[in-house]
Amino acid sequence: MLISETTIDVRYPDCDRMGIVHHSVYAIWYEIARMDFFAKMGFSFSDADALGINPPMVDLHMQYRSPVTYPGQVTVKTSIVSYAPKKLELRYETWYNGNIVAEATTFHIWTGPDMKSFNMEENLPEIYEKIKAAAE
Amino acid sequence: MLISETTIDVRYPDCDRMGIVHHSVYAIWYEIARMDFFAKMGFSFSDADALGINPPMVDLHMQYRSPVTYPGQVTVKTSIVSYAPKKLELRYETWYNGNIVAEATTFHIWTGPDMKSFNMEENLPEIYEKIKAAAE
Amino acid sequence: MLISETTIDVRYPDCDRMGIVHHSVYAIWYEIARMDFFAKMGFSFSDADALGINPPMVDLHMQYRSPVTYPGQVTVKTSIVSYAPKKLELRYETWYNGNIVAEATTFHIWTGPDMKSFNMEENLPEIYEKIKAAAE
Amino acid sequence: MLISETTIDVRYPDCDRMGIVHHSVYAIWYEIARMDFFAKMGFSFSDADALGINPPMVDLHMQYRSPVTYPGQVTVKTSIVSYAPKKLELRYETWYNGNIVAEATTFHIWTGPDMKSFNMEENLPEIYEKIKAAAE
Repeated sequence: MLISETTIDVRYPDCDRMGIVHHSVYAIWYEIARMDFFAKMGFSFSDADALGINPPMVDLHMQYRSPVTYPGQVTVKTSIVSYAPKKLELRYETWYNGNIVAEATTFHIWTGPDMKSFNMEENLPEIYEKIKAAAE
Repeated sequence: MLISETTIDVRYPDCDRMGIVHHSVYAIWYEIARMDFFAKMGFSFSDADALGINPPMVDLHMQYRSPVTYPGQVTVKTSIVSYAPKKLELRYETWYNGNIVAEATTFHIWTGPDMKSFNMEENLPEIYEKIKAAAE
Repeated sequence: MLISETTIDVRYPDCDRMGIVHHSVYAIWYEIARMDFFAKMGFSFSDADALGINPPMVDLHMQYRSPVTYPGQVTVKTSIVSYAPKKLELRYETWYNGNIVAEATTFHIWTGPDMKSFNMEENLPEIYEKIKAAAE
Repeated sequence: MLISETTIDVRYPDCDRMGIVHHSVYAIWYEIARMDFFAKMGFSFSDADALGINPPMVDLHMQYRSPVTYPGQVTVKTSIVSYAPKKLELRYETWYNGNIVAEATTFHIWTGPDMKSFNMEENLPEIYEKIKAAAE
Protein backbone atom coordinates (compact mmCIF):
# COMPACT_ATOMS: atom_id res chain seq x y z
CA MET A 1 0.00 0.00 0.00
CA LEU A 2 1.45 3.34 -1.03
CA ILE A 3 1.61 6.04 1.61
CA SER A 4 3.34 9.08 0.20
CA GLU A 5 4.97 11.62 2.50
CA THR A 6 5.03 15.22 1.32
CA THR A 7 6.82 17.90 3.30
CA ILE A 8 5.57 21.46 2.94
CA ASP A 9 6.90 24.69 4.45
CA VAL A 10 4.40 26.95 6.15
CA ARG A 11 4.41 30.35 4.42
CA TYR A 12 4.19 33.59 6.35
CA PRO A 13 0.81 34.72 4.95
CA ASP A 14 -0.69 31.27 5.64
CA CYS A 15 -1.13 32.45 9.23
CA ASP A 16 -4.12 34.57 10.17
CA ARG A 17 -4.37 37.29 12.81
CA MET A 18 -4.49 34.56 15.50
CA GLY A 19 -0.98 33.59 14.36
CA ILE A 20 -2.11 30.14 13.20
CA VAL A 21 -2.41 28.67 9.73
CA HIS A 22 -5.84 29.49 8.31
CA HIS A 23 -8.09 26.48 7.78
CA SER A 24 -8.42 27.17 4.04
CA VAL A 25 -4.68 26.63 3.53
CA TYR A 26 -4.94 22.94 4.38
CA ALA A 27 -6.93 22.36 1.17
CA ILE A 28 -3.90 23.66 -0.75
CA TRP A 29 -1.60 21.37 1.23
CA TYR A 30 -3.77 18.33 0.51
CA GLU A 31 -3.70 19.17 -3.18
CA ILE A 32 0.10 19.39 -3.17
CA ALA A 33 0.18 16.07 -1.30
CA ARG A 34 -2.27 14.52 -3.78
CA MET A 35 -0.21 15.62 -6.79
CA ASP A 36 2.84 14.09 -5.10
CA PHE A 37 0.94 10.88 -4.35
CA PHE A 38 -0.13 10.55 -8.00
CA ALA A 39 3.45 11.18 -9.19
CA LYS A 40 4.83 8.55 -6.80
CA MET A 41 2.11 6.13 -7.92
CA GLY A 42 3.26 6.60 -11.51
CA PHE A 43 0.56 8.89 -12.89
CA SER A 44 1.84 12.45 -12.62
CA PHE A 45 -0.15 15.60 -13.22
CA SER A 46 1.68 16.06 -16.52
CA ASP A 47 0.73 12.51 -17.59
CA ALA A 48 -2.91 13.12 -16.71
CA ASP A 49 -2.92 16.57 -18.29
CA ALA A 50 -1.49 15.22 -21.56
CA LEU A 51 -4.30 12.65 -21.68
CA GLY A 52 -6.99 15.17 -20.73
CA ILE A 53 -7.79 13.23 -17.55
CA ASN A 54 -8.87 15.08 -14.41
CA PRO A 55 -9.93 14.06 -10.92
CA PRO A 56 -12.38 16.86 -10.01
CA MET A 57 -13.11 17.02 -6.30
CA VAL A 58 -16.70 16.38 -5.27
CA ASP A 59 -16.19 16.12 -1.51
CA LEU A 60 -13.56 17.52 0.84
CA HIS A 61 -13.77 16.71 4.53
CA MET A 62 -11.16 18.24 6.84
CA GLN A 63 -10.69 17.85 10.59
CA TYR A 64 -8.48 20.15 12.62
CA ARG A 65 -7.00 18.96 15.90
CA SER A 66 -4.32 21.46 16.84
CA PRO A 67 -2.88 24.57 15.25
CA VAL A 68 0.21 25.00 13.08
CA THR A 69 2.32 28.15 13.15
CA TYR A 70 5.02 29.97 11.20
CA PRO A 71 7.86 29.20 10.80
CA GLY A 72 7.24 25.48 10.55
CA GLN A 73 6.93 22.50 8.33
CA VAL A 74 4.23 19.89 7.96
CA THR A 75 4.38 16.42 6.45
CA VAL A 76 1.23 15.12 4.80
CA LYS A 77 0.85 11.33 4.52
CA THR A 78 -1.49 10.41 1.68
CA SER A 79 -3.09 7.07 0.83
CA ILE A 80 -6.04 5.59 -1.04
CA VAL A 81 -9.16 4.81 1.00
CA SER A 82 -11.22 3.31 -1.80
CA TYR A 83 -11.26 3.16 -5.58
CA ALA A 84 -13.52 2.10 -8.43
CA PRO A 85 -13.26 2.49 -12.21
CA LYS A 86 -14.84 5.94 -12.16
CA LYS A 87 -13.88 7.32 -8.75
CA LEU A 88 -11.26 7.60 -6.04
CA GLU A 89 -11.17 8.41 -2.35
CA LEU A 90 -7.98 9.60 -0.66
CA ARG A 91 -7.01 10.11 2.95
CA TYR A 92 -4.51 12.58 4.38
CA GLU A 93 -2.77 12.93 7.73
CA THR A 94 -0.98 16.18 8.55
CA TRP A 95 2.01 15.65 10.84
CA TYR A 96 3.63 18.57 12.67
CA ASN A 97 6.32 18.34 15.34
CA GLY A 98 5.70 14.60 15.74
CA ASN A 99 1.92 14.73 16.06
CA ILE A 100 -1.07 14.37 13.78
CA VAL A 101 -2.61 17.83 13.81
CA ALA A 102 -5.17 17.48 11.02
CA GLU A 103 -6.80 14.86 8.83
CA ALA A 104 -8.85 14.87 5.67
CA THR A 105 -10.51 12.76 3.04
CA THR A 106 -11.20 13.78 -0.53
CA PHE A 107 -13.51 12.14 -3.00
CA HIS A 108 -12.87 12.48 -6.73
CA ILE A 109 -14.51 11.35 -9.91
CA TRP A 110 -12.44 10.75 -13.03
CA THR A 111 -13.29 12.85 -16.06
CA GLY A 112 -11.96 12.52 -19.59
CA PRO A 113 -11.16 15.00 -22.37
CA ASP A 114 -14.91 15.58 -22.88
CA MET A 115 -15.16 16.60 -19.19
CA LYS A 116 -17.55 13.68 -18.64
CA SER A 117 -17.22 10.68 -16.35
CA PHE A 118 -14.30 8.48 -17.38
CA ASN A 119 -13.94 4.73 -16.80
CA MET A 120 -10.30 4.32 -15.84
CA GLU A 121 -10.39 0.51 -15.83
CA GLU A 122 -11.68 0.29 -19.40
CA ASN A 123 -9.86 3.21 -20.95
CA LEU A 124 -6.55 3.34 -19.10
CA PRO A 125 -6.13 -0.16 -17.64
CA GLU A 126 -2.39 0.31 -17.04
CA ILE A 127 -3.12 3.35 -14.83
CA TYR A 128 -5.95 1.50 -13.12
CA GLU A 129 -3.49 -1.26 -12.24
CA LYS A 130 -1.25 1.35 -10.63
CA ILE A 131 -4.15 2.64 -8.56
CA LYS A 132 -4.96 -0.93 -7.51
CA ALA A 133 -1.34 -1.58 -6.57
CA ALA A 134 -1.15 1.66 -4.58
CA ALA A 135 -4.35 0.82 -2.72
CA GLU A 136 -3.39 -2.67 -1.62
CA MET B 1 -34.93 30.35 12.06
CA LEU B 2 -32.28 32.71 10.71
CA ILE B 3 -31.01 31.99 7.20
CA SER B 4 -28.58 34.71 6.18
CA GLU B 5 -27.88 35.39 2.53
CA THR B 6 -24.43 36.66 1.62
CA THR B 7 -23.56 37.66 -1.91
CA ILE B 8 -19.92 37.40 -2.95
CA ASP B 9 -18.24 38.35 -6.22
CA VAL B 10 -15.97 35.77 -7.79
CA ARG B 11 -12.46 37.22 -8.13
CA TYR B 12 -10.33 36.65 -11.20
CA PRO B 13 -7.55 34.68 -9.44
CA ASP B 14 -10.14 32.44 -7.72
CA CYS B 15 -10.27 30.49 -10.99
CA ASP B 16 -7.67 27.86 -11.71
CA ARG B 17 -6.20 26.81 -15.06
CA MET B 18 -9.43 24.88 -15.78
CA GLY B 19 -11.21 28.26 -15.64
CA ILE B 20 -13.28 27.30 -12.60
CA VAL B 21 -13.17 28.51 -9.03
CA HIS B 22 -10.64 26.43 -7.10
CA HIS B 23 -12.14 24.26 -4.36
CA SER B 24 -10.08 25.97 -1.64
CA VAL B 25 -11.79 29.30 -2.30
CA TYR B 26 -15.13 28.01 -1.05
CA ALA B 27 -13.69 27.81 2.48
CA ILE B 28 -13.07 31.57 2.26
CA TRP B 29 -16.62 32.14 1.01
CA TYR B 30 -18.10 30.13 3.88
CA GLU B 31 -16.07 32.18 6.34
CA ILE B 32 -17.36 35.44 4.86
CA ALA B 33 -20.89 33.99 5.01
CA ARG B 34 -20.37 32.87 8.62
CA MET B 35 -19.15 36.31 9.71
CA ASP B 36 -22.22 37.79 8.04
CA PHE B 37 -24.48 35.24 9.74
CA PHE B 38 -23.04 36.10 13.16
CA ALA B 39 -23.45 39.83 12.50
CA LYS B 40 -27.07 39.37 11.42
CA MET B 41 -27.68 37.19 14.50
CA GLY B 42 -26.42 40.05 16.67
CA PHE B 43 -22.94 38.83 17.61
CA SER B 44 -20.52 40.39 15.14
CA PHE B 45 -16.86 39.53 14.77
CA SER B 46 -15.99 42.83 16.49
CA ASP B 47 -18.24 41.93 19.44
CA ALA B 48 -16.65 38.50 19.76
CA ASP B 49 -13.15 39.89 19.30
CA ALA B 50 -13.67 42.50 22.02
CA LEU B 51 -14.73 39.72 24.42
CA GLY B 52 -11.89 37.40 23.37
CA ILE B 53 -14.37 34.80 22.14
CA ASN B 54 -13.53 32.66 19.11
CA PRO B 55 -15.23 29.83 17.25
CA PRO B 56 -12.24 27.78 16.02
CA MET B 57 -13.16 25.35 13.29
CA VAL B 58 -12.69 21.69 14.07
CA ASP B 59 -14.45 20.20 11.06
CA LEU B 60 -15.13 21.51 7.56
CA HIS B 61 -17.05 19.35 5.13
CA MET B 62 -17.59 20.68 1.61
CA GLN B 63 -19.46 19.15 -1.32
CA TYR B 64 -19.10 20.42 -4.88
CA ARG B 65 -21.86 19.83 -7.42
CA SER B 66 -21.10 22.06 -10.36
CA PRO B 67 -18.45 24.64 -11.17
CA VAL B 68 -18.48 28.42 -10.77
CA THR B 69 -16.65 30.72 -13.17
CA TYR B 70 -15.45 34.32 -13.50
CA PRO B 71 -17.07 36.79 -13.84
CA GLY B 72 -19.89 35.74 -11.56
CA GLN B 73 -21.50 36.07 -8.21
CA VAL B 74 -22.54 33.50 -5.64
CA THR B 75 -24.99 33.76 -2.77
CA VAL B 76 -24.31 31.68 0.31
CA LYS B 77 -27.26 30.84 2.55
CA THR B 78 -26.13 30.10 6.10
CA SER B 79 -28.03 28.58 9.00
CA ILE B 80 -27.47 26.74 12.27
CA VAL B 81 -27.67 22.94 12.18
CA SER B 82 -27.13 22.32 15.88
CA TYR B 83 -25.89 24.14 18.93
CA ALA B 84 -24.89 23.46 22.53
CA PRO B 85 -23.30 25.64 25.23
CA LYS B 86 -19.78 24.86 24.03
CA LYS B 87 -20.21 24.21 20.32
CA LEU B 88 -21.96 25.14 17.11
CA GLU B 89 -22.63 23.52 13.75
CA LEU B 90 -23.46 25.60 10.68
CA ARG B 91 -24.69 24.72 7.23
CA TYR B 92 -24.09 26.57 3.96
CA GLU B 93 -25.67 26.43 0.53
CA THR B 94 -23.92 28.12 -2.38
CA TRP B 95 -26.32 29.43 -5.01
CA TYR B 96 -25.14 30.40 -8.48
CA ASN B 97 -27.33 31.33 -11.45
CA GLY B 98 -30.40 29.94 -9.68
CA ASN B 99 -28.95 26.59 -8.63
CA ILE B 100 -27.29 25.13 -5.57
CA VAL B 101 -23.76 24.41 -6.77
CA ALA B 102 -22.07 23.57 -3.47
CA GLU B 103 -22.86 22.80 0.15
CA ALA B 104 -20.92 22.64 3.37
CA THR B 105 -21.13 22.16 7.09
CA THR B 106 -18.71 23.53 9.65
CA PHE B 107 -18.32 22.52 13.25
CA HIS B 108 -16.94 24.97 15.80
CA ILE B 109 -16.12 24.97 19.47
CA TRP B 110 -16.31 28.16 21.46
CA THR B 111 -13.11 29.32 23.13
CA GLY B 112 -12.63 32.15 25.59
CA PRO B 113 -9.85 34.66 26.25
CA ASP B 114 -7.70 31.84 27.71
CA MET B 115 -8.08 29.95 24.40
CA LYS B 116 -9.84 27.13 26.28
CA SER B 117 -13.33 25.76 25.84
CA PHE B 118 -15.94 28.37 26.71
CA ASN B 119 -19.48 27.72 27.98
CA MET B 120 -21.57 30.26 26.12
CA GLU B 121 -24.78 29.51 28.05
CA GLU B 122 -23.18 30.16 31.45
CA ASN B 123 -20.84 33.00 30.54
CA LEU B 124 -22.68 34.91 27.84
CA PRO B 125 -26.34 33.92 28.28
CA GLU B 126 -27.60 36.87 26.20
CA ILE B 127 -25.53 35.68 23.24
CA TYR B 128 -26.62 32.11 23.82
CA GLU B 129 -30.24 33.27 23.60
CA LYS B 130 -29.47 34.84 20.25
CA ILE B 131 -27.99 31.56 19.00
CA LYS B 132 -31.10 29.73 20.23
CA ALA B 133 -33.39 32.22 18.52
CA ALA B 134 -31.42 31.97 15.26
CA ALA B 135 -31.57 28.17 15.36
CA GLU B 136 -35.30 27.82 15.88
CA MET C 1 -11.40 61.97 -16.81
CA LEU C 2 -12.79 58.74 -15.39
CA ILE C 3 -11.90 57.94 -11.79
CA SER C 4 -13.70 54.79 -10.75
CA GLU C 5 -14.33 54.04 -7.09
CA THR C 6 -14.41 50.41 -6.05
CA THR C 7 -15.27 49.40 -2.51
CA ILE C 8 -13.87 46.11 -1.25
CA ASP C 9 -14.39 44.34 2.08
CA VAL C 10 -11.29 43.14 3.89
CA ARG C 11 -11.50 39.37 4.37
CA TYR C 12 -10.44 37.69 7.59
CA PRO C 13 -7.55 35.67 6.08
CA ASP C 14 -6.22 38.79 4.30
CA CYS C 15 -4.63 39.70 7.63
CA ASP C 16 -1.33 38.16 8.61
CA ARG C 17 -0.04 37.30 12.07
CA MET C 18 0.63 41.01 12.68
CA GLY C 19 -3.12 41.53 12.32
CA ILE C 20 -2.73 43.68 9.20
CA VAL C 21 -3.62 43.01 5.59
CA HIS C 22 -0.70 41.26 3.90
CA HIS C 23 1.00 43.29 1.16
CA SER C 24 0.26 40.66 -1.51
CA VAL C 25 -3.50 41.17 -1.06
CA TYR C 26 -3.33 44.70 -2.47
CA ALA C 27 -2.45 43.26 -5.90
CA ILE C 28 -5.79 41.42 -5.80
CA TRP C 29 -7.58 44.61 -4.78
CA TYR C 30 -6.02 46.56 -7.64
CA GLU C 31 -7.11 43.87 -10.07
CA ILE C 32 -10.70 44.06 -8.81
CA ALA C 33 -10.51 47.84 -9.10
CA ARG C 34 -9.07 47.59 -12.62
CA MET C 35 -11.83 45.23 -13.78
CA ASP C 36 -14.35 47.69 -12.36
CA PHE C 37 -12.62 50.60 -14.08
CA PHE C 38 -12.74 48.81 -17.45
CA ALA C 39 -16.42 47.96 -16.96
CA LYS C 40 -17.26 51.58 -16.09
CA MET C 41 -15.23 52.75 -19.09
CA GLY C 42 -17.37 50.52 -21.32
CA PHE C 43 -15.01 47.61 -22.00
CA SER C 44 -15.82 44.91 -19.45
CA PHE C 45 -13.81 41.76 -18.82
CA SER C 46 -16.51 39.77 -20.62
CA ASP C 47 -16.26 42.05 -23.66
CA ALA C 48 -12.47 41.70 -23.74
CA ASP C 49 -12.64 37.96 -23.12
CA ALA C 50 -15.09 37.45 -25.99
CA LEU C 51 -12.68 39.29 -28.31
CA GLY C 52 -9.61 37.45 -27.01
CA ILE C 53 -8.07 40.72 -25.81
CA ASN C 54 -5.94 40.77 -22.65
CA PRO C 55 -3.98 43.42 -20.78
CA PRO C 56 -1.13 41.35 -19.29
CA MET C 57 0.70 43.14 -16.53
CA VAL C 58 4.34 43.90 -17.12
CA ASP C 59 4.98 46.20 -14.17
CA LEU C 60 3.30 46.53 -10.77
CA HIS C 61 4.54 49.18 -8.37
CA MET C 62 2.89 49.39 -4.94
CA GLN C 63 3.53 51.78 -2.07
CA TYR C 64 2.25 51.15 1.43
CA ARG C 65 1.72 54.07 3.82
CA SER C 66 -0.30 52.72 6.72
CA PRO C 67 -1.88 49.37 7.57
CA VAL C 68 -5.42 48.12 7.02
CA THR C 69 -7.12 45.71 9.42
CA TYR C 70 -10.10 43.38 9.67
CA PRO C 71 -12.99 44.08 9.81
CA GLY C 72 -12.81 46.99 7.43
CA GLN C 73 -13.46 48.25 3.97
CA VAL C 74 -11.24 50.00 1.44
CA THR C 75 -12.15 52.10 -1.57
CA VAL C 76 -9.78 52.03 -4.52
CA LYS C 77 -9.84 55.00 -6.89
CA THR C 78 -8.56 54.03 -10.33
CA SER C 79 -7.58 56.21 -13.27
CA ILE C 80 -5.48 56.19 -16.43
CA VAL C 81 -1.97 57.65 -16.19
CA SER C 82 -1.00 57.20 -19.82
CA TYR C 83 -2.10 55.29 -22.89
CA ALA C 84 -0.92 54.43 -26.35
CA PRO C 85 -2.25 52.10 -29.07
CA LYS C 86 -0.43 49.08 -27.61
CA LYS C 87 -0.18 49.85 -23.90
CA LEU C 88 -1.84 51.32 -20.84
CA GLU C 89 -0.75 52.64 -17.47
CA LEU C 90 -3.16 52.86 -14.55
CA ARG C 91 -2.95 54.46 -11.14
CA TYR C 92 -4.67 53.40 -7.93
CA GLU C 93 -5.29 55.07 -4.59
CA THR C 94 -6.46 52.97 -1.66
CA TRP C 95 -8.65 54.90 0.76
CA TYR C 96 -9.37 53.60 4.25
CA ASN C 97 -11.14 55.48 7.03
CA GLY C 98 -10.77 58.77 5.15
CA ASN C 99 -7.08 58.50 4.34
CA ILE C 100 -4.95 57.29 1.44
CA VAL C 101 -3.17 54.28 2.88
CA ALA C 102 -1.62 52.83 -0.27
CA GLU C 103 -0.96 53.69 -3.89
CA ALA C 104 0.03 51.78 -6.98
CA THR C 105 0.64 51.99 -10.68
CA THR C 106 0.33 49.14 -13.16
CA PHE C 107 1.61 48.96 -16.67
CA HIS C 108 -0.08 46.71 -19.23
CA ILE C 109 0.42 45.80 -22.84
CA TRP C 110 -2.53 44.81 -24.97
CA THR C 111 -2.45 41.33 -26.49
CA GLY C 112 -4.79 39.83 -29.03
CA PRO C 113 -6.18 36.34 -29.65
CA ASP C 114 -2.73 35.21 -30.83
CA MET C 115 -1.26 36.33 -27.49
CA LYS C 116 0.89 38.86 -29.34
CA SER C 117 1.00 42.64 -29.07
CA PHE C 118 -2.28 44.18 -30.20
CA ASN C 119 -2.79 47.67 -31.65
CA MET C 120 -5.97 48.87 -30.02
CA GLU C 121 -6.24 52.03 -32.10
CA GLU C 122 -6.12 50.17 -35.42
CA ASN C 123 -8.05 47.05 -34.51
CA LEU C 124 -10.61 48.26 -31.99
CA PRO C 125 -10.90 52.02 -32.62
CA GLU C 126 -14.21 52.29 -30.76
CA ILE C 127 -12.57 50.86 -27.61
CA TYR C 128 -9.55 53.07 -28.11
CA GLU C 129 -11.87 56.08 -28.17
CA LYS C 130 -13.29 54.97 -24.83
CA ILE C 131 -9.78 54.75 -23.37
CA LYS C 132 -9.03 58.23 -24.70
CA ALA C 133 -12.23 59.62 -23.24
CA ALA C 134 -11.53 58.01 -19.86
CA ALA C 135 -8.02 59.41 -19.83
CA GLU C 136 -8.92 63.01 -20.55
CA MET D 1 28.11 39.89 -1.42
CA LEU D 2 25.41 37.44 -0.43
CA ILE D 3 23.08 36.28 -3.21
CA SER D 4 20.73 33.67 -1.80
CA GLU D 5 19.02 31.18 -4.10
CA THR D 6 15.59 29.96 -3.07
CA THR D 7 13.80 27.29 -5.06
CA ILE D 8 10.01 27.28 -4.92
CA ASP D 9 7.52 24.87 -6.48
CA VAL D 10 4.65 26.39 -8.42
CA ARG D 11 1.35 25.31 -6.86
CA TYR D 12 -1.63 24.32 -8.93
CA PRO D 13 -3.92 27.19 -7.79
CA ASP D 14 -1.15 29.73 -8.42
CA CYS D 15 -2.19 29.59 -12.07
CA ASP D 16 -5.12 31.63 -13.27
CA ARG D 17 -7.61 30.86 -16.04
CA MET D 18 -4.94 31.77 -18.62
CA GLY D 19 -2.91 28.85 -17.24
CA ILE D 20 -0.12 31.12 -15.99
CA VAL D 21 0.96 32.05 -12.48
CA HIS D 22 -1.04 35.07 -11.32
CA HIS D 23 1.01 38.22 -10.79
CA SER D 24 0.02 38.45 -7.10
CA VAL D 25 1.75 35.13 -6.35
CA TYR D 26 5.18 36.60 -7.06
CA ALA D 27 4.86 38.80 -3.96
CA ILE D 28 4.54 35.59 -1.91
CA TRP D 29 7.58 34.11 -3.65
CA TYR D 30 9.66 37.21 -2.94
CA GLU D 31 8.66 37.02 0.72
CA ILE D 32 9.75 33.37 0.92
CA ALA D 33 13.01 34.35 -0.79
CA ARG D 34 13.49 37.28 1.59
CA MET D 35 12.98 35.11 4.68
CA ASP D 36 15.53 32.68 3.24
CA PHE D 37 17.95 35.53 2.52
CA PHE D 38 17.69 36.79 6.10
CA ALA D 39 18.22 33.27 7.48
CA LYS D 40 21.30 32.74 5.29
CA MET D 41 22.59 36.17 6.34
CA GLY D 42 22.33 35.08 9.98
CA PHE D 43 19.18 36.91 11.11
CA SER D 44 16.28 34.50 10.75
CA PHE D 45 12.61 35.35 11.09
CA SER D 46 12.60 33.59 14.49
CA ASP D 47 15.56 35.72 15.65
CA ALA D 48 13.82 38.91 14.52
CA ASP D 49 10.48 37.82 15.95
CA ALA D 50 12.04 37.08 19.35
CA LEU D 51 13.51 40.59 19.40
CA GLY D 52 10.30 42.24 18.18
CA ILE D 53 12.04 43.52 15.06
CA ASN D 54 10.13 43.75 11.77
CA PRO D 55 10.94 44.94 8.28
CA PRO D 56 7.54 46.26 7.11
CA MET D 57 7.36 46.74 3.37
CA VAL D 58 6.82 50.28 2.14
CA ASP D 59 7.46 49.74 -1.56
CA LEU D 60 7.17 46.69 -3.81
CA HIS D 61 8.07 47.01 -7.47
CA MET D 62 7.65 43.95 -9.68
CA GLN D 63 8.40 43.46 -13.37
CA TYR D 64 7.12 40.53 -15.36
CA ARG D 65 8.92 39.40 -18.52
CA SER D 66 7.53 36.00 -19.39
CA PRO D 67 4.99 33.65 -17.84
CA VAL D 68 5.48 30.70 -15.49
CA THR D 69 3.23 27.63 -15.58
CA TYR D 70 2.31 24.57 -13.54
CA PRO D 71 3.97 22.17 -12.95
CA GLY D 72 7.23 24.01 -12.59
CA GLN D 73 9.80 25.42 -10.25
CA VAL D 74 11.33 28.86 -9.93
CA THR D 75 14.55 29.96 -8.27
CA VAL D 76 14.64 33.42 -6.76
CA LYS D 77 18.03 35.07 -6.34
CA THR D 78 17.96 37.70 -3.62
CA SER D 79 20.49 40.37 -2.73
CA ILE D 80 20.79 43.73 -0.98
CA VAL D 81 20.60 46.84 -3.17
CA SER D 82 21.15 49.41 -0.43
CA TYR D 83 21.05 49.66 3.34
CA ALA D 84 21.11 52.24 6.07
CA PRO D 85 20.63 52.06 9.85
CA LYS D 86 16.84 52.36 9.56
CA LYS D 87 16.06 50.85 6.16
CA LEU D 88 16.85 48.17 3.62
CA GLU D 89 16.34 47.66 -0.10
CA LEU D 90 16.39 44.19 -1.64
CA ARG D 91 16.44 42.95 -5.20
CA TYR D 92 15.06 39.70 -6.59
CA GLU D 93 15.51 37.81 -9.83
CA THR D 94 13.12 34.99 -10.68
CA TRP D 95 14.75 32.25 -12.77
CA TYR D 96 12.66 29.68 -14.62
CA ASN D 97 13.95 27.11 -17.09
CA GLY D 98 17.26 28.93 -17.40
CA ASN D 99 15.91 32.44 -17.94
CA ILE D 100 15.10 35.46 -15.83
CA VAL D 101 11.33 35.75 -16.11
CA ALA D 102 10.64 38.38 -13.46
CA GLU D 103 12.41 40.89 -11.25
CA ALA D 104 11.52 42.95 -8.23
CA THR D 105 12.79 45.33 -5.62
CA THR D 106 11.39 45.81 -2.15
CA PHE D 107 12.01 48.62 0.25
CA HIS D 108 11.67 48.07 4.00
CA ILE D 109 12.01 50.13 7.11
CA TRP D 110 13.08 48.51 10.36
CA THR D 111 10.62 48.73 13.25
CA GLY D 112 11.18 47.75 16.87
CA PRO D 113 8.97 46.25 19.59
CA ASP D 114 7.11 49.60 19.85
CA MET D 115 6.30 49.36 16.10
CA LYS D 116 8.28 52.56 15.54
CA SER D 117 11.35 53.16 13.40
CA PHE D 118 14.34 51.22 14.71
CA ASN D 119 18.01 52.13 14.31
CA MET D 120 19.66 48.81 13.57
CA GLU D 121 23.21 50.18 13.74
CA GLU D 122 22.77 51.62 17.23
CA ASN D 123 20.55 48.98 18.76
CA LEU D 124 21.65 45.75 17.11
CA PRO D 125 25.18 46.47 15.83
CA GLU D 126 26.02 42.78 15.41
CA ILE D 127 23.04 42.35 13.05
CA TYR D 128 23.94 45.56 11.25
CA GLU D 129 27.42 44.14 10.64
CA LYS D 130 25.80 41.07 9.06
CA ILE D 131 23.75 43.28 6.75
CA LYS D 132 26.89 45.19 5.80
CA ALA D 133 28.78 41.97 5.11
CA ALA D 134 25.91 40.62 3.01
CA ALA D 135 25.75 43.83 1.00
CA GLU D 136 29.41 44.06 0.08
